[in-house]
Amino acid sequence: MYDAIIIGGGPAGTTAAIYLQRFKKKVLLIMKDMGALGKTAHIDNYYGFIDTITGPDLLNRGIEQAKRLGVEVLEDEVLSIDNFPDFKVKTINGEYTSKTLMMATGKTQTRLKAKNFNNFVGKGISYCAICDGFIYRNKKIGLVGNKEFMEEELEILKNFSEDITIFTNGMDLSVKVDKPVVLDEIQEIKGNEVINQLVAGDKTYDVDVLFMAVGSPSATDFALRLGAFLDASNNLVVDDQFMTNIPGMFAGGDCIGGLLQIVKSTSDGAHAAIAMNRYLKNMNK
Amino acid sequence: MYDAIIIGGGPAGTTAAIYLQRFKKKVLLIMKDMGALGKTAHIDNYYGFIDTITGPDLLNRGIEQAKRLGVEVLEDEVLSIDNFPDFKVKTINGEYTSKTLMMATGKTQTRLKAKNFNNFVGKGISYCAICDGFIYRNKKIGLVGNKEFMEEELEILKNFSEDITIFTNGMDLSVKVDKPVVLDEIQEIKGNEVINQLVAGDKTYDVDVLFMAVGSPSATDFALRLGAFLDASNNLVVDDQFMTNIPGMFAGGDCIGGLLQIVKSTSDGAHAAIAMNRYLKNMNK
Repeated sequence: MYDAIIIGGGPAGTTAAIYLQRFKKKVLLIMKDMGALGKTAHIDNYYGFIDTITGPDLLNRGIEQAKRLGVEVLEDEVLSIDNFPDFKVKTINGEYTSKTLMMATGKTQTRLKAKNFNNFVGKGISYCAICDGFIYRNKKIGLVGNKEFMEEELEILKNFSEDITIFTNGMDLSVKVDKPVVLDEIQEIKGNEVINQLVAGDKTYDVDVLFMAVGSPSATDFALRLGAFLDASNNLVVDDQFMTNIPGMFAGGDCIGGLLQIVKSTSDGAHAAIAMNRYLKNMNK
Repeated sequence: MYDAIIIGGGPAGTTAAIYLQRFKKKVLLIMKDMGALGKTAHIDNYYGFIDTITGPDLLNRGIEQAKRLGVEVLEDEVLSIDNFPDFKVKTINGEYTSKTLMMATGKTQTRLKAKNFNNFVGKGISYCAICDGFIYRNKKIGLVGNKEFMEEELEILKNFSEDITIFTNGMDLSVKVDKPVVLDEIQEIKGNEVINQLVAGDKTYDVDVLFMAVGSPSATDFALRLGAFLDASNNLVVDDQFMTNIPGMFAGGDCIGGLLQIVKSTSDGAHAAIAMNRYLKNMNK
């Protein structure tokens, strides 16, 4: 049982991990890739680095720093989170429990480039099988995704309907599924009030709903599944202690919105860690 | 005429200067010494540094970084600020004008160790000659300080009373004054409702008021003189754009309170710079 599991190895998550480690807490930092910063070639405005530094270099330095201070770092991908009574975090390779959790997964876009996509979000395009699956029982379900996250959603959706088609949207399929698979890119979404068809490759498919499970789950995905509040921009809503509406679940960095800057994320990380440490103290009273 | 003058070369001020410089603004960063961070021997929790770094090393790196990006850095001490119509900043060696100003002078303590000192703050102990001098016209004035800041206050106080004694509180006097000087440390403050005596060395001195001008002026000192709001902990009050109640005067870092951590200060600096850039844009409309 960890005191804190932090999901995301960018500036927010790593700073939080470092602070919590120094509060002598048992911390696990789970990271899967480099996130937004990994794509940043030149950083000039992060205080303390005389010369330009690359995003990957800064990220690696942060992780090395965390490891040096004793933080346990796991390179794995989180697939699901349950929160009763403790937080149970399921990754591709394992399962971990913790008293508190911090979401620091950055801001990911899982929108499709398909024509009319934005018009149908909430009108037959859903980001949460466990939230909306029941509504579409025995309906024609389209599921977009190509790897473990999609597989997780598929298992949930099978409880509601037999008629499920996987759309990888042009990506390779990296898991085994027992449902029809369309590998073509999705070009267009069709419907009136709600979605009823999609065009992929040269073909048109009838669907009553399209569930999105592209790539890896984002903070938004986890939030939806856990019932955490999101604002109109899909940012996690936190209070002044960086806690979401779920007791013990904190968040910081790009996934809570605000300035998308390293300095803001590190500040969030420190604030969240201090609040988590206080929360853990009160738990043990 | 500068677009922005930033007072303080720590993480908040330097980050703000870097951001403003990259917004192509004409920026002057004025710093006098190393502040709180200069006394910090070991920093482990500032994101991105694998190994321990010292406070002075981090400060120097920040300044080098700012200079590399084109920020004009001035090592000088600010003595006074006027704000009509632009901000006029007077230092020991010069005078500079700017459209906006940022206070990032950290948190300095100018309290004396003298017995009963805390009991008489606001009861005959004042931090602002220009604010309170008139109240004590023709009274016995004690003025605590030993250098340029004290000299500034002395010139103001001379408008109100001839009876002024300088107390250096054990420090060497580094400016010339035409009033009696007591070099002994102040041991005790005496009085009933308000101050009426102080003990320094073996002697007791009658005073009706004690004006504090120890060391260099702090953010609090400037705030008092400009009429900027302070909270109960003497932190500068800023809005969500990091602007004080004085239009064009911003603040960030330790002097606005909150977490006294590098990551919080750099975050303040970035936020303030972005707000200042927006403010400058609106000025030019």
